[in-house]
Amino acid sequence: MWRLYQFSLCPFSRAVRLGLAEKGVVFELVEVFPWERSEALTRVNPAAQTPALENGALVLADSAAILEYFDETVDRSPLIGASAVGRAEARRVSAWFRERFYAEVTAPLMRERMWKRVVARQMPDGRVIREAARAAEAHLQYAESLLLENRWLAGPTFSVADIHAAAQISVADYLAGIDWAGHPQARQWYQALKSRPAFRVILGERMEGIRPPAHYDDPDF
Amino acid sequence: MWRLYQFSLCPFSRAVRLGLAEKGVVFELVEVFPWERSEALTRVNPAAQTPALENGALVLADSAAILEYFDETVDRSPLIGASAVGRAEARRVSAWFRERFYAEVTAPLMRERMWKRVVARQMPDGRVIREAARAAEAHLQYAESLLLENRWLAGPTFSVADIHAAAQISVADYLAGIDWAGHPQARQWYQALKSRPAFRVILGERMEGIRPPAHYDDPDF
Repeated sequence: MWRLYQFSLCPFSRAVRLGLAEKGVVFELVEVFPWERSEALTRVNPAAQTPALENGALVLADSAAILEYFDETVDRSPLIGASAVGRAEARRVSAWFRERFYAEVTAPLMRERMWKRVVARQMPDGRVIREAARAAEAHLQYAESLLLENRWLAGPTFSVADIHAAAQISVADYLAGIDWAGHPQARQWYQALKSRPAFRVILGERMEGIRPPAHYDDPDF
Repeated sequence: MWRLYQFSLCPFSRAVRLGLAEKGVVFELVEVFPWERSEALTRVNPAAQTPALENGALVLADSAAILEYFDETVDRSPLIGASAVGRAEARRVSAWFRERFYAEVTAPLMRERMWKRVVARQMPDGRVIREAARAAEAHLQYAESLLLENRWLAGPTFSVADIHAAAQISVADYLAGIDWAGHPQARQWYQALKSRPAFRVILGERMEGIRPPAHYDDPDF
């Protein structure tokens, strides 16, 4: 049985949960907070980072590597496109959200509105939050342009790009960093994702001490 | 013919150049600096980021996606391992260097010692440089531990992990951010890479206004 070391507001853990659900892989969750450097987490992943996925002696880490692994080993629901060019696009868009969106939007919001509230007990820095909101707006605009061309972010079929993007956006949305107004295509795309069972489970979870905005888990937001 | 939009001190462009050379793919270089937002670059890549690889109507971006593309389409010199577990490890270590090493070492060094000198004409921030050097030390120590177990970073065979790591480390080394003392395995690994023809070409290039340390292009450093 696979065990996933994760916490609910970790965007990379969310991507793994969504991908494993698409693949029909059964796993159990172990909640760990990287900043507590729990023994359970450092034992499986010396980097003390979530997500880490363990099965006996085998440990996988890095959300993109994990999803590639299951796309290679489980036939059901291919997640990285059929042609080499389509796969390159799925990986490009995935990296965009995992690296740029995370660095410019999710990470600063997690620091200001999650870590400072729950761990450091400090006030958030309004300037950093406003910058993250501006970056989120630009990224949603970019998603909008991709979705004007295709039904899904990287082409006509659902892929890892949608998973990595939705995972990042959903954490930013929990932390009140997303303004959906003016992005009809992105909103419709996110609505379709919200109705997927595994995503609904994630959206039902709450982190103690932080309440998401009212629209957060509403499928008809 | 493939055209690679890149600049010499871009670590992600270096990774693409090294990977294409391993694959025997012929390409020409177009030098562009992202901060100049040149028309040539924004035309192929609206994100105005290097590297972008163009061939007629086809444009590929993101260094990891590009190397996956050529590993799928060119049989020569497999770069991502044979087993699913080996491939997961190659991708995990690749992401480590592309994301963590870049964020903690290469990016701050590029901002302080390249961008501030060449573009902004400001003095570098010594505190940031010292932090980057500390992070580099920890990452080299991590590489050392991987290389005590295996001949290459992700296992017994050369892989994208070695390419992405060498690309990042070589830019940090150009910017005098690497102290090789006390890392015999990492040094030996890097020596083996330095003797590869495509890497020697890269190490022979200089960015105007910035001189690397004496050991930088010495294969017997």
